[in-house]
Amino acid sequence: MTGLILKIDCPDQPSVVSKIASYVADYSGSLVEFSQFTNTQLAKFFARVQINTSNLSVDVEDFISGFTTLGKSLSASWNFRRLPYKMRTAVMVTKTDHCLNEILWRTSLGELPIEITSVIGNRDNCQKIAEQAKLPFHFIDMDGEKKEAGFRKVHEILKEENVELTVLARFMQILPNWFCDKHSGKIINIHHSFLPAFIGAHPYRQAYERGVKLIGATCHYVTSDLDAGPIIEQEVQRVQHFHTPKDLMRLGRDCERDAIARGIRYHVHDRTIIHENRAIVFPD
Amino acid sequence: MTGLILKIDCPDQPSVVSKIASYVADYSGSLVEFSQFTNTQLAKFFARVQINTSNLSVDVEDFISGFTTLGKSLSASWNFRRLPYKMRTAVMVTKTDHCLNEILWRTSLGELPIEITSVIGNRDNCQKIAEQAKLPFHFIDMDGEKKEAGFRKVHEILKEENVELTVLARFMQILPNWFCDKHSGKIINIHHSFLPAFIGAHPYRQAYERGVKLIGATCHYVTSDLDAGPIIEQEVQRVQHFHTPKDLMRLGRDCERDAIARGIRYHVHDRTIIHENRAIVFPD
Amino acid sequence: MTGLILKIDCPDQPSVVSKIASYVADYSGSLVEFSQFTNTQLAKFFARVQINTSNLSVDVEDFISGFTTLGKSLSASWNFRRLPYKMRTAVMVTKTDHCLNEILWRTSLGELPIEITSVIGNRDNCQKIAEQAKLPFHFIDMDGEKKEAGFRKVHEILKEENVELTVLARFMQILPNWFCDKHSGKIINIHHSFLPAFIGAHPYRQAYERGVKLIGATCHYVTSDLDAGPIIEQEVQRVQHFHTPKDLMRLGRDCERDAIARGIRYHVHDRTIIHENRAIVFPD
Amino acid sequence: MTGLILKIDCPDQPSVVSKIASYVADYSGSLVEFSQFTNTQLAKFFARVQINTSNLSVDVEDFISGFTTLGKSLSASWNFRRLPYKMRTAVMVTKTDHCLNEILWRTSLGELPIEITSVIGNRDNCQKIAEQAKLPFHFIDMDGEKKEAGFRKVHEILKEENVELTVLARFMQILPNWFCDKHSGKIINIHHSFLPAFIGAHPYRQAYERGVKLIGATCHYVTSDLDAGPIIEQEVQRVQHFHTPKDLMRLGRDCERDAIARGIRYHVHDRTIIHENRAIVFPD
Repeated sequence: MTGLILKIDCPDQPSVVSKIASYVADYSGSLVEFSQFTNTQLAKFFARVQINTSNLSVDVEDFISGFTTLGKSLSASWNFRRLPYKMRTAVMVTKTDHCLNEILWRTSLGELPIEITSVIGNRDNCQKIAEQAKLPFHFIDMDGEKKEAGFRKVHEILKEENVELTVLARFMQILPNWFCDKHSGKIINIHHSFLPAFIGAHPYRQAYERGVKLIGATCHYVTSDLDAGPIIEQEVQRVQHFHTPKDLMRLGRDCERDAIARGIRYHVHDRTIIHENRAIVFPD
Repeated sequence: MTGLILKIDCPDQPSVVSKIASYVADYSGSLVEFSQFTNTQLAKFFARVQINTSNLSVDVEDFISGFTTLGKSLSASWNFRRLPYKMRTAVMVTKTDHCLNEILWRTSLGELPIEITSVIGNRDNCQKIAEQAKLPFHFIDMDGEKKEAGFRKVHEILKEENVELTVLARFMQILPNWFCDKHSGKIINIHHSFLPAFIGAHPYRQAYERGVKLIGATCHYVTSDLDAGPIIEQEVQRVQHFHTPKDLMRLGRDCERDAIARGIRYHVHDRTIIHENRAIVFPD
Repeated sequence: MTGLILKIDCPDQPSVVSKIASYVADYSGSLVEFSQFTNTQLAKFFARVQINTSNLSVDVEDFISGFTTLGKSLSASWNFRRLPYKMRTAVMVTKTDHCLNEILWRTSLGELPIEITSVIGNRDNCQKIAEQAKLPFHFIDMDGEKKEAGFRKVHEILKEENVELTVLARFMQILPNWFCDKHSGKIINIHHSFLPAFIGAHPYRQAYERGVKLIGATCHYVTSDLDAGPIIEQEVQRVQHFHTPKDLMRLGRDCERDAIARGIRYHVHDRTIIHENRAIVFPD
Repeated sequence: MTGLILKIDCPDQPSVVSKIASYVADYSGSLVEFSQFTNTQLAKFFARVQINTSNLSVDVEDFISGFTTLGKSLSASWNFRRLPYKMRTAVMVTKTDHCLNEILWRTSLGELPIEITSVIGNRDNCQKIAEQAKLPFHFIDMDGEKKEAGFRKVHEILKEENVELTVLARFMQILPNWFCDKHSGKIINIHHSFLPAFIGAHPYRQAYERGVKLIGATCHYVTSDLDAGPIIEQEVQRVQHFHTPKDLMRLGRDCERDAIARGIRYHVHDRTIIHENRAIVFPD
C-alpha cells in the first residue's frame, strides 16, 4: 500500500479533526486510521492519521507541502512519513544478546519496518551474531577515559549511516548528556526493572532484596535524566520466594524481550508522540 | 458536562470522517473523542464520537435531527445519546450473588452511568441484597412448565420499567428465542468459561476434567444461539493441578466479576458496536 | 476436617523433612500438604505442613506439646494451628470502602476463615457498611494531637477483642512505631502502588506524572519502616495515556481489591512465613 | 551440583512422605526440594524430590537400586535421574521457525538442560537455521502416501539418536496413532489456540471469526486423540476488534514461544507427572 502517516500535535481548538480530515478528503486521500487524543486538562490535541494515497488527486509531495498552511494555522507540530518505508536503525549492545536476537528475529519476519544499519558494541560478545545476520559490527571501546571519544565515534557512525533510531539493547553504559540531547526522541532503551522502581544498577538484585512478587522491564526514550525518560511500554511477570536473583534475570529476560519488541514497534510505526515526560502511544 | 455520544456505522467511503467532524464543527460542537475503526476487508466504517455541546450554536434537538440528512447520505445507522444519562438497567439472577454485588458496588461508586430499575430472580436468594440496596425484587418462577409464562412476565416488567439493558448476572436459565430476539443487543450475559471453550453447563467441572492451566469468563451479548453471541470482554486466571473444581469456582468468580464489570461498562458508555457476530469495543 | 497446620522454620540440616514427616507418621497423622522451601544461600529451611488428624493415635494436645522436643532439637521456630478455625480479625478504615467491602464479601462467602471482630475507623464513612454487616464499628479520632491516644485506644480494642490479625483496608494514617512493633507480623496493609515505586502519599498521582504503562497495588506486612515491610502479594493493570489520575484510582481499586484479598487469604491460611524483610508464600 | 531427581506416584497411604524422606536421610542424601501433591479425591500421591548427593554414604547406583524395595512396598511408579544431565531432544518442524528459534536460543543460554540431537522437517524451510546452529537436519517427505513411511523413518531416527523427548515446534502433520503410542509421554506439541477452544486447523482464523478478546497457545503432551493430550502450559494475550487474522498470527507467535518454552522447561526438569489426561506440574 502506498500511503502516508501523519503525526501531529497542537493546542486543542474547534474544528481541528474536521480541518485535518477535510484536508485529506479534499485531495481524495482516504483515511485508514484516525487515532486521536485530546488532553482536556492541558488543552492539547494529538493525532496519528494514516492515509491511503492511492487515489490522491495531487502529487504526494504537493499534498505534504500544502499541509503547511493548515499546520501553521493550527500552531501544530507535525510530521509526514511515506509508506512503505524502512526506518534506519542502529542497535547498541554490550554482552547479553537476547534483546538483539529478538530484534533480528522480528525484523527478519517482517514484523518491524526497519533496516538495521549496524550493531555497535562496547564489548565484542555480539559480533558473531551480527555477522551471521550479515550486519556490520562496530566495536568501540568506551571504558574509562575512552568514553567521550567513544561516543563521538558512535555519533559519527549514526550520522554516516543516516540512522533514525538507536536502540539500546541492554547496552550497559551511561550515555553522555550531549549525546542524549543530540538524539532526543530517537534513542530507545530497555531497563530491566519496572520503572521507577529499581533505577540504576543491578535491578534484579534490588528486586530480590526487596522481595517483590512481580518483576518487570521498561522500554523508554532516553533523556539525560537516567532511567527517567518517557515510558513507551512495560511488562511484568510473577515471581515467588524461591526464585534466586539468577532466576529473576532469567524470567526478566522474557519481560525485556517483550517490552523492547513492543516499544520499538510502536515507535517505528509512528504510534508514539512524546509530550513532556510522557509518551502517548496508539497501540496496534 | 453536557454533551452527546454518537455511535455510527456505515459503508466505508471517501470523506466520512471529514463529513462527520465538519457537521460537528459547523454547529460549534467540540470533539472530546473520535474513536474510529475501518474494517477494510468488509469496507465498513464504525465510529464512536463524543461531543461537548456547551458552545453549540443550535439547539441540541435540532443538532440531532439535522444529522439525519448526513446520516442518510452516508447510508449509516446511527444513534445519539445525551450526556449525562443513566441507562435503565435490570439485573437477572438465580442463586449466586457475586456478580450482582459487583454491579451494585460499582454503581454506588458512580463508576457506571446506570440506574438499576429492579432485580429479577427465578430464585429468591438475592432478594435480601436487593432490598438492602433499596431495589425492587421480582421473584418469578420459571421452572418447568412455568418458563414461557415467566419470561412473558419478565418481558412485561422490562417494558413497564423502560429498561434499556438487561444483565444476566449468573442467571441460570436458557432464554426463549423470542425473548432473545425482542431484546437483541440489549441483553448481556456472563458465561463462566473462556468461550468458545466449555459451552453449556458446568464449565468449571469441564475445565477441571480437561486439565486446563487457565480458566476464564466471558461477557457477551445474548443471542438465540446459546453462548455464541458477540463477545465484549474476557478474563482469565492461572490455575494449577491442585485446584479442585470448587477452587476453580472460587477463582473463576474473580474472572466473572471483572469481565462482567468491564463488559457492562463498555456497553453503557456506548463503547460497543455489534457487527454480525463480533463486538467492536472502544475501551476506556 | 479436623486437622493441624504446622508452620516451621529452622536452620537447614540433614533429615529435617524426614524427622518432621516421621513425627507425624509415628502418631498416625496423615499429611495433606507438605510445602517446603530451602533457602540454600542462607541455609534456612521453611515449611508449611497440613496434617489430617482424624486417625491420630494420641490426643491432639499431646501431639502438639510432644513436638517440642523435636522442634528444639532442630533449633526451630514453629507454630501449630487447629483446623477448623476462624482467625479473629479487625479491619481499620478511613473513607474509602472498596477493600472493606471485598473482605466482607469474601468472608460471607466462606472464602476466608476469619471472624471479623470489629471495624475501626478514623472517619465514620464506613460505619453504615459495618452496621449492615452487623459488625461493631469503633470511631476513633486520631487527627493531629489525638493520634497517640487514638492508637492506644485501638491497641486496647485489639486486646479486648483478642484480635490476631489487623487489616489496614485503605487506612490513611501512619502508624506509630510502638504500635507496629507490638503487632509485628500481625498487621497487613494495602498500598495503592506497585512498591517500591511510589512510596508515600498520592501514588496514583505520582504514577500519572511518571507516565507508567502499568499501575499496581501491594499487600504487605506493616513495619515501622513506611511501605517497606515484607510483600505478600502484588497486582498490576495496564493503563494508557488517556487515563487521568482519576481513572488510575478507579482501575487501581481493582488491583487493590485483588491484592488485599489474596494477601489476607495467604496469611489467614498460614501460607506465609516472614523471614527478615521477605515473605515466603506457599500459594493455594 | 551432583544430585538426583526422583519422580514418584503411588496410592496415597500413611507415612509416604516420611518413608521417602527417611530413605534419603538414612543414606545421608540431602533434600533440596520436596514438591508433593496429594489428590485426596483419587487417593493418589505424587512427588518430585530433588536430592543433593554430595555426602551420600553409599554409591549412587546402590542408592537408586536400593529404593526398589521401598518403591514396590508403596506400589509406586518412580524414576530417578542423575544431575547434571542433558535430555536428548529432537525438534520437528514444518515451515515456521519461531518455536525452533526459541528453543535454540534458550538452549544456547543454558536455560534448558537439553542436547538437541537433530531437527526433523517435512519441509526444508528450517534447514538453514539448523545448520547455522550446527545441528543435523533430516528432511523427510511425509506428504500424502509417503506419510506412513515418513513416520517410520522418524521413528528410526529417534531410536538411533537415543532421543528422550520429541518437540513438535509447529510441526503441521497429524501423527499416526502407532507413533503417538510408541512415544507416549515423550512428545510435546504446541497448539496455536487456547485449547480446548479451536481444535484442529486454522485456529487463528477460527478465533477471528468467533471474535474472542483473548487468543492463546497450549503446550501439551501428544496422544492419539488430536489436540486432547494432557496440558502442560497455556498462555494468552489480549486482542481487539481491529486485529486481523494476520495480526492474531503475529501476536499468537508470542504466546506460542512462551508456552512451548515453559512447557519444555517443566518437562526436561522432570517437573511434570502425567496422570490420566492431566499433567501435574511443579513449576519453578
